[in-house]
Amino acid sequence: MRIVVVGGDAAGMSAAHTALRRARAAGRPVEVVVLEAGGDTSYSACGIPYWIAGEVGDGEELVARTAEEHRSAGIDLRLHTRATALDPVRRTVTATTADGAEEALRYDELVLATGAHPVHPDWAERDGEPIAGIHSVKTLVDGARWNELIAEAETAAAARGGHDHGAGPRAVVVGAGYLGIEMAEAFLRRGVATTLVTRSRVMSSLDEELGDRIAEDLAGAGVVLRSGVEIGEVVSEGGRVRAVVTTAGERLPADLVVPALGVEPTTALGRAAGLPLGENGGYLPDPGGRVAPGIWAAGDCCEYRHRITGQRAFVPLGTHANKTGRILGANLLGAGWQFGGVLGTAITRFAAGGEHLEVARTGLGTEQALEAGHDVASLVTEGTTASGYMPEAEPITIKVLADRSDRRLLGVQVVGGPGAGKRIDAAAAALWGGMTVDDLAWMDLSYAPPFATAWEVLQVAARRLAERL
Amino acid sequence: MRIVVVGGDAAGMSAAHTALRRARAAGRPVEVVVLEAGGDTSYSACGIPYWIAGEVGDGEELVARTAEEHRSAGIDLRLHTRATALDPVRRTVTATTADGAEEALRYDELVLATGAHPVHPDWAERDGEPIAGIHSVKTLVDGARWNELIAEAETAAAARGGHDHGAGPRAVVVGAGYLGIEMAEAFLRRGVATTLVTRSRVMSSLDEELGDRIAEDLAGAGVVLRSGVEIGEVVSEGGRVRAVVTTAGERLPADLVVPALGVEPTTALGRAAGLPLGENGGYLPDPGGRVAPGIWAAGDCCEYRHRITGQRAFVPLGTHANKTGRILGANLLGAGWQFGGVLGTAITRFAAGGEHLEVARTGLGTEQALEAGHDVASLVTEGTTASGYMPEAEPITIKVLADRSDRRLLGVQVVGGPGAGKRIDAAAAALWGGMTVDDLAWMDLSYAPPFATAWEVLQVAARRLAERL
Repeated sequence: MRIVVVGGDAAGMSAAHTALRRARAAGRPVEVVVLEAGGDTSYSACGIPYWIAGEVGDGEELVARTAEEHRSAGIDLRLHTRATALDPVRRTVTATTADGAEEALRYDELVLATGAHPVHPDWAERDGEPIAGIHSVKTLVDGARWNELIAEAETAAAARGGHDHGAGPRAVVVGAGYLGIEMAEAFLRRGVATTLVTRSRVMSSLDEELGDRIAEDLAGAGVVLRSGVEIGEVVSEGGRVRAVVTTAGERLPADLVVPALGVEPTTALGRAAGLPLGENGGYLPDPGGRVAPGIWAAGDCCEYRHRITGQRAFVPLGTHANKTGRILGANLLGAGWQFGGVLGTAITRFAAGGEHLEVARTGLGTEQALEAGHDVASLVTEGTTASGYMPEAEPITIKVLADRSDRRLLGVQVVGGPGAGKRIDAAAAALWGGMTVDDLAWMDLSYAPPFATAWEVLQVAARRLAERL
Repeated sequence: MRIVVVGGDAAGMSAAHTALRRARAAGRPVEVVVLEAGGDTSYSACGIPYWIAGEVGDGEELVARTAEEHRSAGIDLRLHTRATALDPVRRTVTATTADGAEEALRYDELVLATGAHPVHPDWAERDGEPIAGIHSVKTLVDGARWNELIAEAETAAAARGGHDHGAGPRAVVVGAGYLGIEMAEAFLRRGVATTLVTRSRVMSSLDEELGDRIAEDLAGAGVVLRSGVEIGEVVSEGGRVRAVVTTAGERLPADLVVPALGVEPTTALGRAAGLPLGENGGYLPDPGGRVAPGIWAAGDCCEYRHRITGQRAFVPLGTHANKTGRILGANLLGAGWQFGGVLGTAITRFAAGGEHLEVARTGLGTEQALEAGHDVASLVTEGTTASGYMPEAEPITIKVLADRSDRRLLGVQVVGGPGAGKRIDAAAAALWGGMTVDDLAWMDLSYAPPFATAWEVLQVAARRLAERL
């Protein structure tokens, strides 16, 4: 049996290793070929902002397993090799190397693990040419490039008088989602004055009250916020960005510009081969990972069942890539495992300029819940992360959403100081189990003064909502 | 209706306020009398070690609501008043004040919320007299006394040459459970050389591998450990402790000795009145809080149903006191609420002498699970609290227990650096919902590099166990 995997990051490599391990355990001969368009495998894309921030010394630290490690485990890994065509009937995929050489690879089972790519705005180019200083954040190559760009911006800033004259390096981050606030943190930590531009509002994947709290902290740390506007125009000079002009007509000087406008599934290969795609352009694997006879998909190129709505959702995250890759890999050898779906759990932080805010969510936000037809009740509760008399106590804001009709939890959102964010996991576990707001309010969660209030704040939030239902 | 509550701490006051609030909302006249033997109400007993450690400036900060606040809410609070006799037939309780005056109070509903008291070892007294320097940790009065005792020990140490001559104050903590390691932390932070004596091992409420890890950290911080021994003899001079001698014959010089040997339910009142008691001597309320006609009980004086074993368990904790008090209070006005039971979730930390270790558990340990008849499978997994390349990454050890026959989670134990402890809540939520080890392994928990590894370590631990079942 020959398994061909397209994409050598979390999902693809999880699938490859799991299949190989199970085949060996079963004494079945199997050949696993992985085609990776880039030069890196199994790296943490999520870690790149922290590398740019200077918290991670070297991009190599972000690599979980090198090409050599994969190969020595028995995987036929081909770097700088793209899958450029797929013939589902003849079961072949065309592998094209960097020098243009093509090979039609026959497969018994094909795994599509092509991930997602950043939304690329028109304004990032001029006459089809990229503008220096405008760059996305996705691959290790991007991370290395960002470190160069910041160094160049520092040199340019020094030439025009430097920090002393208020002319230090300046960045504009476009988009105020997870990547946007992580890049704002990175820039501030590198001493780069940062403006955050968003067409909607800060962290719109959380409800507005919580997004506002995050916006306050960003402002407190010195980030200049421009909400409700987009980039109208880019001013460049000698092919290098100098400023952006917002749709409100404001000119923002910029040495560095990050488009952090989200990602979209990389599914051109399957699309051209006629594979069905979802509303967001992602593959639509069944719970076992199969998309068509002999064709499987996992990770960020897929749309998965949302466990609360039952509908497909595009939630590109390394956690799902790891899990779905592993499930798919086992299923290639007949395991019959099923992926339980996604809740939309996510976490990040903004820690710079004297602020430290943790942000997390799970389940549905108000808008999503209303769209899904729920009779939504919700409440925002303020509390502390530890007993109020402890030095560890930090403010925390929690929003709980439930359905009035059956009291089931719909979602939880958390914003607060150190210790706030990971509280989302208890809520996620409750959501995973289809529990009610009462279950969350009364379950036996942990308490000691350095860690919580005697009524854990997550449970106070749930209880107060429960009492209003 | 007259409600008499015996005990003015978490459970009693939760019951009193909840009943009063509901009675008012329903327009029902109700009189609520609270008899409190001590002089303080609604204080955090769990906070006392942190007060002794110097992290909390004043004992008053540990008081959640003062007597005046309770009274102005309409509660007839009687401090320094003991309930000395109970006649369930005539529905009277005898209230005895500090000066010996007695009053037979008629009640319609009686709430027993008398809490628990520290196990008092024989060696803490000589000829019926307490030995100065040996003192338990339970009430605010105890906390204030400990601050005096430490000051006295410092004076005595200075007189004999002080720290410079290796003769600083010395403490012996007897018992290595939650309170024991919290007091070891407090003493180290106050510059008191500390020996921890335990007849079994460190944190025996966790399995041995995890207890050993805690013992290593205690030793690393400079705590001298003596396991498998008890106190054989106390050496005192002028009514003040000078040393303890272990059952192994070792003499340990000591200015300060804390018996931290656990607590037992304070149920003499009900016992004398013929109320049924459990194996640990606690009241046995039904899920609504009732123990007999017109008599209710909540908090640390009770044994509650363990949600995993279905058996009664004595798990004295403020969280259960708050919850059961509130439920009982609502039920006094006919709410019909039920307490869902306990999982034995608990958390603490040891943070002193350069160490910072968080310790948490939920559900059953190996011994408990075997006793309950489970076909126990378990596994210990090592990981990190954040992505390995992040400065936040700290080692974490997780043990997961499940039943081989139905794959249900039985318990989880966690020991690790900052960020480790509160991870227990996701496991507790899964246990609360009766979920399997597979649910825990594959559910959608949060990930970002400062908070977790891409496979959250709790899920790696569950997955590895699941793969072995």
